[in-house]
Amino acid sequence: MRGGHRHRPSDEFGSDSDVEGGGGNTSTTMKCVSCRDEYCPSDAGTCRECYEEASETEEELKREIDDLKAKVAFLRFFCTPLNQRPTSCFTDVVLVASDDDNPVPVPAHKAVLASRSPVFRAMLENEMEESLSGTIKICDVSYDALRTFVNYLYTAEACLDEQMACDLLVLAEKYQVKHLKTYCEKFMVSKLNWENALVSFAFAHQHNAKNLVDSALSLIMDNMDKLSKREEYLELVEKDPRLVVEIYEAYLSKQVNTAAHKDSLSKP
Amino acid sequence: MRGGHRHRPSDEFGSDSDVEGGGGNTSTTMKCVSCRDEYCPSDAGTCRECYEEASETEEELKREIDDLKAKVAFLRFFCTPLNQRPTSCFTDVVLVASDDDNPVPVPAHKAVLASRSPVFRAMLENEMEESLSGTIKICDVSYDALRTFVNYLYTAEACLDEQMACDLLVLAEKYQVKHLKTYCEKFMVSKLNWENALVSFAFAHQHNAKNLVDSALSLIMDNMDKLSKREEYLELVEKDPRLVVEIYEAYLSKQVNTAAHKDSLSKP
Repeated sequence: MRGGHRHRPSDEFGSDSDVEGGGGNTSTTMKCVSCRDEYCPSDAGTCRECYEEASETEEELKREIDDLKAKVAFLRFFCTPLNQRPTSCFTDVVLVASDDDNPVPVPAHKAVLASRSPVFRAMLENEMEESLSGTIKICDVSYDALRTFVNYLYTAEACLDEQMACDLLVLAEKYQVKHLKTYCEKFMVSKLNWENALVSFAFAHQHNAKNLVDSALSLIMDNMDKLSKREEYLELVEKDPRLVVEIYEAYLSKQVNTAAHKDSLSKP
Repeated sequence: MRGGHRHRPSDEFGSDSDVEGGGGNTSTTMKCVSCRDEYCPSDAGTCRECYEEASETEEELKREIDDLKAKVAFLRFFCTPLNQRPTSCFTDVVLVASDDDNPVPVPAHKAVLASRSPVFRAMLENEMEESLSGTIKICDVSYDALRTFVNYLYTAEACLDEQMACDLLVLAEKYQVKHLKTYCEKFMVSKLNWENALVSFAFAHQHNAKNLVDSALSLIMDNMDKLSKREEYLELVEKDPRLVVEIYEAYLSKQVNTAAHKDSLSKP
């Protein structure tokens, strides 16, 4: 609760409520119970009771966070990646990146895959080829991405860079692992800038990443004057003109709304 | 942040900082930005900046809680208990309550058991009888407790009453499932009262539940005058007198400390 900001310097040794005045004095200052600095009535925040309630709430929230962190740690599977552990860990299936020339199998448990992904569940429970052979081939993916993907299914954690976030989002969409998809989308939204906005917009569209579509579109609309000069723009017009139409439609709709809003404000 | 308490009634439509006086008036009241009630300087809590910081902190903590809850939901295994699911879920081991006449097996995964309990891990990885036969016999436990225990290993959740908490604590201690042990201990501490304090104290001792030992002991020491009249006391003297000695030793030590503390206060 102790703030990092500073008002003017104050007496460190004063009591909690240094109220000067009150009856008919010329100034009233109080000491903040949180940062301990003095302030005048116009800078007043809460009464003491609300401050105490808020402090209790904060403590409760922190306890809840500790409990939840312990739960996550408990529910997480093992600490080291499966293929770096000395024993087999009772794995009953392997995943391989089928595009690799010398694919290294990533060991896993059918139960974990089925629990995290409805696509894996259908594949494994219906005794399709993958279930019988104990090998699941995954196309268009590197060994690194596949290993990170499988590890995420066990731990709900991944170390992302921009390429890995793209690769995992594609896998998350394909195998319907919503939690991972949200995780990648959040990361990519945080990395959005004018340089990558158009590429991200097209990528997000392709993989149904709605939050990323919206964020990228919003960034593009803020820079419409520069849009048509970008190389990626010309490429997109060539490759998927419907997406370019969508940008213009969204921009027009925003303009109409803004005009209507201004209009309603100017009326009596 | 909106408090549930009430000061005196105030003007609902006033502005945020209704500062009367300031220069040389006879009264200064402010409106709390959280509960919107008026208060005088002596009831002042925080300055506005600290209030805003605290509100932001609260929002951040709530977002963190939402993220952690989503993580827990993701890491949890399946929604329904394993033995109520239509398919096998790729289980590779069963647990049975060996005291039962007609034991109903509780299906599970070696990988989950090994991940949650170092005892199960050693048992299963070292290819002991249990691993080879695919059956783990558990003594001194009911089918209900065993099923609840296994379900906890998958979900980190259990519906407890006092008997179930005891049963699960015993299992958690035996199979070194720390998270479950803490969970049961917390529940039992919350249910402590003078009626069950002695029994809980003895039980906690037997199963190395330190928090429960401490809480029960503290409750017993607050009621020393009534201790020797209780039936459970007489039983404990008979059955495990060392525990009774421990109570008296703790009581004496507390008395000596209190006396020393009083003594140090009375000295100049």
